[in-house]
Amino acid sequence: MSEEHTPADAPSPGASKIQTGIENDYYSQEVHGPFELFSMDAFELEEGETLRNCTIAYTTFGELSDEKDNAVLFPHMYSGTSKDMEIYVGEEMALDPNEYFIVLPNQIGGGLSTSPHNTPPPVGQGDFPDVRISDDVRAQHKLITEEFGIEELQLVLGWSMGAQQTYEWAVRYPEMVKRAMPISGTARNPVLSGLLVDALRTAITSDPNWEGGHYTDPHAVREGLQHHARIWALMGTSSALWRDEEWREAGFSSLSDFMYGMWDEWFLPMDPNDLLCMAWKWKHADVSRVTGGDLEEALGRIEARTYVTPFDTDMVFTLEDHEDDEEMIPDSDLNPISTPWGHFGMFGFDPSDMERVDETIGELLDESV
Amino acid sequence: MSEEHTPADAPSPGASKIQTGIENDYYSQEVHGPFELFSMDAFELEEGETLRNCTIAYTTFGELSDEKDNAVLFPHMYSGTSKDMEIYVGEEMALDPNEYFIVLPNQIGGGLSTSPHNTPPPVGQGDFPDVRISDDVRAQHKLITEEFGIEELQLVLGWSMGAQQTYEWAVRYPEMVKRAMPISGTARNPVLSGLLVDALRTAITSDPNWEGGHYTDPHAVREGLQHHARIWALMGTSSALWRDEEWREAGFSSLSDFMYGMWDEWFLPMDPNDLLCMAWKWKHADVSRVTGGDLEEALGRIEARTYVTPFDTDMVFTLEDHEDDEEMIPDSDLNPISTPWGHFGMFGFDPSDMERVDETIGELLDESV
Repeated sequence: MSEEHTPADAPSPGASKIQTGIENDYYSQEVHGPFELFSMDAFELEEGETLRNCTIAYTTFGELSDEKDNAVLFPHMYSGTSKDMEIYVGEEMALDPNEYFIVLPNQIGGGLSTSPHNTPPPVGQGDFPDVRISDDVRAQHKLITEEFGIEELQLVLGWSMGAQQTYEWAVRYPEMVKRAMPISGTARNPVLSGLLVDALRTAITSDPNWEGGHYTDPHAVREGLQHHARIWALMGTSSALWRDEEWREAGFSSLSDFMYGMWDEWFLPMDPNDLLCMAWKWKHADVSRVTGGDLEEALGRIEARTYVTPFDTDMVFTLEDHEDDEEMIPDSDLNPISTPWGHFGMFGFDPSDMERVDETIGELLDESV
Repeated sequence: MSEEHTPADAPSPGASKIQTGIENDYYSQEVHGPFELFSMDAFELEEGETLRNCTIAYTTFGELSDEKDNAVLFPHMYSGTSKDMEIYVGEEMALDPNEYFIVLPNQIGGGLSTSPHNTPPPVGQGDFPDVRISDDVRAQHKLITEEFGIEELQLVLGWSMGAQQTYEWAVRYPEMVKRAMPISGTARNPVLSGLLVDALRTAITSDPNWEGGHYTDPHAVREGLQHHARIWALMGTSSALWRDEEWREAGFSSLSDFMYGMWDEWFLPMDPNDLLCMAWKWKHADVSRVTGGDLEEALGRIEARTYVTPFDTDMVFTLEDHEDDEEMIPDSDLNPISTPWGHFGMFGFDPSDMERVDETIGELLDESV
């Protein structure tokens, strides 16, 4: 067959876009890099489907010691990337790259790793398979062990969906995880948190421009993404934040400025299908899948010294939800952080929240285990 | 002009529907009656527009004493009618019709009173004007004084938007209100509660079948109404209700049964524009409009003995919101009721919640003022 007759060269408008997925400059090295890529030839998901050339984007800070005994793993939350966790890495912080080798992996579906928007047909966009927290954690395990030869993690920590991954790590690979710090997230997704996922999902899928997940322009789903952002605003913080206008401390000049500048600006650039992929994963998070639904047995497996770290006003993953988990974890403490920012305490809009998180990470790392 | 040439008799398909608004059997004597009607020739709304033949539906229990000194006023909440408040009226209850003359008025926009769905063009449906809590309270004042000649109310009470009306009564007509019991509702709508309104509104208006409020079949807006119902489920109760499956105590057999049987069944029969009319009113509730925005001055006007009565887990109108109000009301107490049902504690799904509300009403009525 001559070169000009290969399908790749056939004149087909939009073919390049279809072959590589949807273009979205938001998910780029420029915005979220630098990051590296770790590819797996064929990765079988827990739900049975296979992702070919499944790729995990990740960033590292510091150097792995010769003994490979200074590694920390820090997965990210819903709608985030590894870039967002970098604010907790620095020379003056607990996660000091002079001391630790810090790995920030990106979720499958998170936009930088293999995701609905960057996957070609027939499994891209609205056809992307359901992914579980356990899929991410198994992929991260391959990255950690095969790429770096690490057999022991000094700390696994994460916020929200990052906490869900932290729990999955501590239950699935208990001998590898020395310390665990789930922040504002639970071992099994609370029912109310699942209702939030449902509402967020409907916000997107009820936008006619979503087109069953087969839009050609993610930004055309603007109304759905904004509705989704505003539902997050509703549940993501606390009543006190709004009552006392504590958002002014974060530099927002008016309520409108806060709504557009924080909530819409955060979510509007994103890919709707990527969000829906993470949302499904979030809703179905449950470490007790490995113990036939017995949460106490699953959490009883954890060997890590564990700091269960809720934000006290969190409406999505409540203080009480964390208390329930903590009681079932053998070597654990509850370390609530008081903030009007609710679930979003992690962003450090109030610098004292961030200091408190950083201090807690430091205290846990200082514990000998 | 001969009779057959009058516009009313002209053969015009759908004219009868257009002239009387949208048909909806839900808002009927059969479902929500018996109720009476009180009509005002032309009622000027605070926002400037006039409702012609503005009609307030209401129900009464008991008999007005010769001295007209046994009247209680009990307005209703968002999405409700006078029928829903009848569960707190009975011979074995604090609101005993043998003792009190109990008036249950219906909100403008509530479906039984003048509302978007039953108002003909040019002000019906999506063209219905914005209505304020103060409009309802002024209309109720006319009902109370002109229809019944009542000059003094022993008690005004209400839940949620009923609490907003209670506050408006106590601030606007302080000399008439002897006792006030706002239940799970505040004098000025909390910002977070306004964000909930925004999300509920978007849930409805993002349904393509809403058609800018000019649908011909309210049930065609089913997806929007269901999304609206599910957002209420998210914020209307508490995390504990879902975590501990306390809804089972109310007779629901599964989570699905609870979602369909409680939330969808409640909201799906309703008229979308009627809900949006109430929602705007709810969002903009603020008794300090009469004092140029000074809430302390407005609440300082209240002469009524006042029981501020929150449900302790309420996420929409929080305990702290109620505490703030209570501190500004001269002769008041805070009487929180502990329940996992959050804002929906009033429905009595847990009978002990209803007993506690009834007891509190009784205690307030027993106070000599």
